Amino acid sequence: MTGTLYGIGVGPGDPELITLKAHRILQSVPVVAWPAPLEGDSMARRIAAPHLTHDPVEIPIRMPIEATQFPDRSVYDQAAVEIGSHLDSGRDVAALCEGDPFFYGSFMYLFGRMAPQYDITIVPGISSLMASAAALESPLASRNDLLTVVPAPLEELALTDAVAAADSVAIIKVGRHLTKVRRVLGKLGLLDSAQYVAYATMSEQAIKPLTSVTEERAPYFSLILSHKRGAAWR
Amino acid sequence: MTGTLYGIGVGPGDPELITLKAHRILQSVPVVAWPAPLEGDSMARRIAAPHLTHDPVEIPIRMPIEATQFPDRSVYDQAAVEIGSHLDSGRDVAALCEGDPFFYGSFMYLFGRMAPQYDITIVPGISSLMASAAALESPLASRNDLLTVVPAPLEELALTDAVAAADSVAIIKVGRHLTKVRRVLGKLGLLDSAQYVAYATMSEQAIKPLTSVTEERAPYFSLILSHKRGAAWR
Repeated sequence: MTGTLYGIGVGPGDPELITLKAHRILQSVPVVAWPAPLEGDSMARRIAAPHLTHDPVEIPIRMPIEATQFPDRSVYDQAAVEIGSHLDSGRDVAALCEGDPFFYGSFMYLFGRMAPQYDITIVPGISSLMASAAALESPLASRNDLLTVVPAPLEELALTDAVAAADSVAIIKVGRHLTKVRRVLGKLGLLDSAQYVAYATMSEQAIKPLTSVTEERAPYFSLILSHKRGAAWR
Repeated sequence: MTGTLYGIGVGPGDPELITLKAHRILQSVPVVAWPAPLEGDSMARRIAAPHLTHDPVEIPIRMPIEATQFPDRSVYDQAAVEIGSHLDSGRDVAALCEGDPFFYGSFMYLFGRMAPQYDITIVPGISSLMASAAALESPLASRNDLLTVVPAPLEELALTDAVAAADSVAIIKVGRHLTKVRRVLGKLGLLDSAQYVAYATMSEQAIKPLTSVTEERAPYFSLILSHKRGAAWR
């Protein structure tokens, strides 16, 4: 019998923020695949580590971190072949994904390749969006708020329009677009209340007003939250 | 010592889709508060039930289901007093919330009242947004997609503008606004690919193309997903 491919959302960072379902699957699955930079740790692997105590076969999917947005096709093509051979032999495979697999998740590249031929089960995960709002102690959206998730790589005009139209925005993939994002929020009068959250729920977690971020560039695992009501909740 | 108030996201419905952290807290917390309609079951209580085996004190927060959007202040004022008396006596309290507490969650009404005086810890939960995308086997957003969460009670023009501007939309709180939502999606050429998800991950889960929904009114726990790429993922 062919194995099942699980797309597992491992959540934002705290290993306790994975679901009971993800935990159950991870504890016994024979093969685990995870995305990683060319060198160094996989964040998804690090989050799942406390739950992988049974020594599964591991398939690293490595690429330059800048390429995670528009990855080299061949890396995922190759991973799909390797994962497929385990599934064909009847072994289930869990592909780990930071946050949620279908919310800007890296799992989509495997899903697009493997969904036509294989049984796939998606296990949703806590998104960094919800984790950041919890860490900030500031609700993301309520009542009839329009909430927009805005990728920072968009060009400045599109970014401005998207932020202007929403009540609440989460700006993701900030990276080297930090200066542009500051400019857009400033133009719209939202700079002073915007909040910056990096590595939500991880040991490195940093939360501060955007105005006190001095770096030129935001890390990959960071986002900016802004709400028209201002930073406080009343 | 004063107790801690936990705002617990119990996830979308499947009791296995709560986090290890929520599970740990629920198993031992002495007092549990939950929202419910005037008569009948609380969905949040039902989701958490398998994890509440130690017979905690329970505080129902009951109101007409139509009032959950803009609730009667006195109901939450009264709940805050009752919860506060437990916290003052040193007992922790877990307030249950379907999905995530800070993503259009009912917990915000307690949070607004109690945050000034008490220690509050938010435990994020799986949102129905992510659970619905997983159930549909269709990614919510990827790459530089603009994703907007649109409350259906907005007036038709605002609704149209919000849907038109986004790549991917999740229309929530559909209820009696189903006809208006159909009209808006139709006008924008998105009706044929829009997907309807009710009670995601629960035993009553229903997934179908919006065009085959014949009801006049959508249930409280339902949403509509639409992506400009169409229903399929390629």
